[in-house]
Amino acid sequence: MNIESPSPIAWRFSERAGQLQSSFIREILKITQQPQIISFAGGLPSPATFPVDAMKAAFDKVLSTAGKTALQYGPTDGYPPLRQWIAEMLSKDGATIVPEQVLMVSGSQQALDLLGKVLIDEGSRVLVETPSYLGALQAFSVYRPEFKSVLTDDHGLVPSSIAAVAEGARLLYALPNFQNPTGRTLSTARRVELVETCAGLGLPLIEDDPYGALSYKGDPLPKMVAMNPAGVIYMGSFSKVLTPGIRLGYVVAPLPLARCLERAKQAADLHTAQLTQMVVHEVIKDGFLDHHIPTIRELYGNQCQVMLDAMAEHFPASATWTRPEGGMFIWATLPPHIDAMELLDAAIKENVAFVPGAPFYANAPETNTLRLSFVTVPPERIRHGIAVLGKLIAARM
Amino acid sequence: MNIESPSPIAWRFSERAGQLQSSFIREILKITQQPQIISFAGGLPSPATFPVDAMKAAFDKVLSTAGKTALQYGPTDGYPPLRQWIAEMLSKDGATIVPEQVLMVSGSQQALDLLGKVLIDEGSRVLVETPSYLGALQAFSVYRPEFKSVLTDDHGLVPSSIAAVAEGARLLYALPNFQNPTGRTLSTARRVELVETCAGLGLPLIEDDPYGALSYKGDPLPKMVAMNPAGVIYMGSFSKVLTPGIRLGYVVAPLPLARCLERAKQAADLHTAQLTQMVVHEVIKDGFLDHHIPTIRELYGNQCQVMLDAMAEHFPASATWTRPEGGMFIWATLPPHIDAMELLDAAIKENVAFVPGAPFYANAPETNTLRLSFVTVPPERIRHGIAVLGKLIAARM
Repeated sequence: MNIESPSPIAWRFSERAGQLQSSFIREILKITQQPQIISFAGGLPSPATFPVDAMKAAFDKVLSTAGKTALQYGPTDGYPPLRQWIAEMLSKDGATIVPEQVLMVSGSQQALDLLGKVLIDEGSRVLVETPSYLGALQAFSVYRPEFKSVLTDDHGLVPSSIAAVAEGARLLYALPNFQNPTGRTLSTARRVELVETCAGLGLPLIEDDPYGALSYKGDPLPKMVAMNPAGVIYMGSFSKVLTPGIRLGYVVAPLPLARCLERAKQAADLHTAQLTQMVVHEVIKDGFLDHHIPTIRELYGNQCQVMLDAMAEHFPASATWTRPEGGMFIWATLPPHIDAMELLDAAIKENVAFVPGAPFYANAPETNTLRLSFVTVPPERIRHGIAVLGKLIAARM
Repeated sequence: MNIESPSPIAWRFSERAGQLQSSFIREILKITQQPQIISFAGGLPSPATFPVDAMKAAFDKVLSTAGKTALQYGPTDGYPPLRQWIAEMLSKDGATIVPEQVLMVSGSQQALDLLGKVLIDEGSRVLVETPSYLGALQAFSVYRPEFKSVLTDDHGLVPSSIAAVAEGARLLYALPNFQNPTGRTLSTARRVELVETCAGLGLPLIEDDPYGALSYKGDPLPKMVAMNPAGVIYMGSFSKVLTPGIRLGYVVAPLPLARCLERAKQAADLHTAQLTQMVVHEVIKDGFLDHHIPTIRELYGNQCQVMLDAMAEHFPASATWTRPEGGMFIWATLPPHIDAMELLDAAIKENVAFVPGAPFYANAPETNTLRLSFVTVPPERIRHGIAVLGKLIAARM
């Protein structure tokens, strides 16, 4: 039986829904998934690094030995042995992180949403890097903050620029290791200065660290959460060191905030899949990541070098770009008159794609910037794609 | 290196964070997980019904044949074959539901959060049943609506009571099948009247249907979404027919709303685990649920009857209770002077637990009500637990 609708619904969405825009990057990805496109646009890790066999064995073991528990509702804060593992891993740098500080989430994007939900009121000031991670800008935007951009240079965020915009700020969001989108790393001296500055201001500092383990050479720099666990909120993820499609991340927060986030998580989706958490713990508990992560570093490091070499050969002298020591991205800055959005249109016609830099700016965008990812493209295609881009840029000089 | 904090953070949470309270039910569950407690408090399905072997085989097959895809990031709206399956299943009642209307979510709790996020502004009027599902009240509360309670009786929600509170309302939330907490079912005549009333008012109607397949006898009643797909938002879940710990549900919405929900989902957690969706599709695609669901119905139906018989024997004549024809809950109403919260304290001392009814009311609570779940307790313990409750109630007459 069908009902006639005398008054079809005139949809009235919330004011916050007006902030929701489809990610420009995900729109580009739809275009660039055709096989003939050489895509430097993706933010996806390389599937070549996914430990399918180890995951399969772990699913089998967990379902065989604890299937009924794994498939039942679980605690909102997460699977206790995995929270313990994370607390111990983060306590290696000298600070003491307790499992009660750890909240398991469905990928770190959810941590951003929950942090925005409990920390941001309409009009609240939120400090972000210039440029910043697009997913964070999107997640926070829903709660309608006033974004203030903090200066960055080749050593990352400039702590001395914070004071001028800090008044009333609810949080500062930073991505210190191999930043998305720039690939830049915050130096150790700057980390100390940043943590001291935020501590002096009583300003919560979010340390988002999805790529920290992916350094191509040398040891990772010290984590800021270890310098001041009472003032730093740490976000981690299994997406880049294991696999992203399972949606598993975590946020580590000072206790008053951790409990508030837990309640927000409960209202948002009760808890993250128990089975997934048990399987990941099964995979990593005996040191699997110690030999797995180096294979990711080697793959990405080699392809990064191929791209850097190709850029040196094909990009004009007036362009500059970052030289990442880890992670997944290179950031290029072209002469100011070149519009990366127009360049993208031309590049797609020649079957090459990248992400223009403008969407990564919370405020005034630099339209002559672009983000290049090298992790899913084989060396030969990296060389060809960069040559195409170099030719297109040269034609605009 | 540790940093001294001259200004420890004085946490300032958002106004919406003030709405977040830990679920009273989950707090009770923590107390009642000791094995000596006979708990009628749970809202958990019985693990005896979880198809562990089928899930294990499906994980193995999906990871063996499409592991790299399953473990990669996926589309925000969900795994296309599963969305297709859901659209076809919902199109069997005569209406046409297209896959573009289906958004996969991390359990239906997430659908409630996303609906609240895009439909509710501070102070927006939201209509709910009396009593209503606690998880919905929690999810919507975050967005600070004004709840208005709509009358219910033994046949469910009373449509004629809507007009008096409908002015400016953003949505009406209803749970027509074997409602949580009352176990009541909305009659077919009432469904038609409800859909017509909402259509006449241009009022979006949310049909939350986690238990619809769990009817003990007879066919399910017609779905309201099939009567008016342009005005009804349908929520479904695999938690009660397959397993809850994987966190997989879906929301089916008219297209303008579906696209808005998709953008909200993207900002909230990018997408629900691709692997989980592929595995569930693998399990159900060839009719598994057709023979699995009857086994759940039989188990729950038998235990429901055991509880109803025990209540008839042990509860005083002045108490009344619902006689569910499906689902997981019985709702009891005691003489008005008996406070179910006080009764719970006494019951826990005798190792029996239930959920007092008060938290399920958006506005004026009826403190002499309680919710009893029979699905995870074996018959002998149901009889004993109900006898204990009957004695405690009699002592208060």
